[in-house]
Amino acid sequence: MPESRIPAAQLRRFMTRALERLGLPAADAATVGEFMTEAELQGSDGHGAIRLAPYARRIRAGGINLTPAIRIEKEKAGMALLDGDNGMGHLVMKQAAEIAIAKARNCGVAWVGARLSNHAGPASLYARMALEHDMIGVYFAVGNANHLPPWGGLDMLLSTNPIAVAVPAGEEPAVVLDMATTVAAYGKVKAKAQRGEQMPVGWMIDRTGAPLTDPKRSEEGFLMPIGGYKGYGLALVVGLLAGTLNGAAMGSETIDFNKDQSSVTNTGQAILMIDPDAFGDLAAFKARVDKLVREMRASERMPGVDRIWLPGEQSHARRVANLRDGMALPPTLVAQLDALARELGIPLLQET
Amino acid sequence: MPESRIPAAQLRRFMTRALERLGLPAADAATVGEFMTEAELQGSDGHGAIRLAPYARRIRAGGINLTPAIRIEKEKAGMALLDGDNGMGHLVMKQAAEIAIAKARNCGVAWVGARLSNHAGPASLYARMALEHDMIGVYFAVGNANHLPPWGGLDMLLSTNPIAVAVPAGEEPAVVLDMATTVAAYGKVKAKAQRGEQMPVGWMIDRTGAPLTDPKRSEEGFLMPIGGYKGYGLALVVGLLAGTLNGAAMGSETIDFNKDQSSVTNTGQAILMIDPDAFGDLAAFKARVDKLVREMRASERMPGVDRIWLPGEQSHARRVANLRDGMALPPTLVAQLDALARELGIPLLQET
Repeated sequence: MPESRIPAAQLRRFMTRALERLGLPAADAATVGEFMTEAELQGSDGHGAIRLAPYARRIRAGGINLTPAIRIEKEKAGMALLDGDNGMGHLVMKQAAEIAIAKARNCGVAWVGARLSNHAGPASLYARMALEHDMIGVYFAVGNANHLPPWGGLDMLLSTNPIAVAVPAGEEPAVVLDMATTVAAYGKVKAKAQRGEQMPVGWMIDRTGAPLTDPKRSEEGFLMPIGGYKGYGLALVVGLLAGTLNGAAMGSETIDFNKDQSSVTNTGQAILMIDPDAFGDLAAFKARVDKLVREMRASERMPGVDRIWLPGEQSHARRVANLRDGMALPPTLVAQLDALARELGIPLLQET
Repeated sequence: MPESRIPAAQLRRFMTRALERLGLPAADAATVGEFMTEAELQGSDGHGAIRLAPYARRIRAGGINLTPAIRIEKEKAGMALLDGDNGMGHLVMKQAAEIAIAKARNCGVAWVGARLSNHAGPASLYARMALEHDMIGVYFAVGNANHLPPWGGLDMLLSTNPIAVAVPAGEEPAVVLDMATTVAAYGKVKAKAQRGEQMPVGWMIDRTGAPLTDPKRSEEGFLMPIGGYKGYGLALVVGLLAGTLNGAAMGSETIDFNKDQSSVTNTGQAILMIDPDAFGDLAAFKARVDKLVREMRASERMPGVDRIWLPGEQSHARRVANLRDGMALPPTLVAQLDALARELGIPLLQET
């Protein structure tokens, strides 16, 4: 069965309609539908259309406030703390990024944290919001399930707490880093299990510290942090900045959103916006980024390496191709969306 | 030969006198001497007393401006860009951190970048400056020698660009992360070579991508970034934030300070200060950090693991012990300092 290629506008219409039918106000459904489509467009397939079914489950279980009063709880010239009122994370972090951009225009730099938020899709979406304003965006989040113990430990007290950084360039695509602080994200483990493949050594360890390579046994082990104790330290400080600072959940307070659909997750996220225009000539800055990007790309390569990629360059290429050709959704995902459409009484994706 | 235990005040006096004799104004010599002693106290031995000889070489070669006019080149309410005028990096970054703290008190958050700076010792020193003001400090720097190619490449275009984060706690020691974005810092490779030991697989690779474990062959290979392409991405974005944003050296512009003593390094660094008091009750924040720290420490442990450490906890313990007992400097280092003292015509460390 060939994969269906879905134009972005069609996926966005479908997502928006489904979210509206689930109870989101029309404007909010459109916003979340757009971010979910953006995630799919850039190839963040673990955070795109595949999330509609879990979002629907959580909404139906009463785990999301459909009409949140998102508000600024604390504010200074260069910062704000948002109370997300348990709304969809996309709505909270869109507002956080917009506030940070406006404040950074005045102060040069601004930071907005959020508590009582929820899963907001891929980290890079919010860092990337900086780019159309010629700013640098830096995003931190507390993940929504703990898969990582402290270094040397067995209790899963940390999540894959991601970092994203988006830096505008001139003629080159922006540099966009989006990374979990673990070697592999948990979604990649699940994908290996679905495909019946083994994991490489280094992704997971078991409770004795030995490599765990069978993804079907993933419940018996832990994700490995990048660089060993360094990745543990990174996951912890990202959580302190995105969670603890905001009074959001961290450590044992983290709600596993796969297992618990109704508790308030109190998800914490933070966004930092930096205006390069405050540091000097903007065009000169972008030219320096271009020069650096080209230097990396032109490096002599190891045997067997076809091309040096910059962070975010493959996502950028995928987004350009997906906008042009439509998105190839796997048949299992299309079937899942079809089932949900029937439940909700809305047209199937293909007929939207 | 037993190691000598040197009280901190004695090392500081010696460093300060040597730097003064090398031409630094008395107040600046005292500042740099104090930071170098702090580095040694916390066990950052690659960035402490061992750096006096290379600093002396660079100063004598005319590579450092001994009387820099460090000035704010650009400024907004929440940021500043410092021109370090090629002064010692410690002087530039001390000033940067102080400006950032003052601005963060007003704005909630502030960022200060520096260009035309120099090596400033361990990253954590400047992040830690936040702590006595009950703030969170985040520090980024461009390293002073390239040992890392872009992922898949062979040209060494990136340094070990470090990140440091210091988060104040209540009763617990502060959480202080200080990490290079490579699996091992280059100083650790040199130490292995000195001791005639092999490196573990994963520290370095050769030009074919195969593991390199003989530290005497380190010139034939590269450091490995943490998490593979992720660490490459981190090193690059840290460099963009600490270097490119400020108009400081990055990529091929980086001067290898081991090989070139006289060129202006145009080192770039950046410090971000965050005032938790702007986000809510400070004591409540610190109590949340304490709770999280204790949770990590109390985790069930893997077989053979005696204790779970928090980032910075070992440095903290070392600092407490070194303040109490004095510092155990290796005889080779003492001999190096003695030789320098004779050249400069100042009393030996032991007689200071």
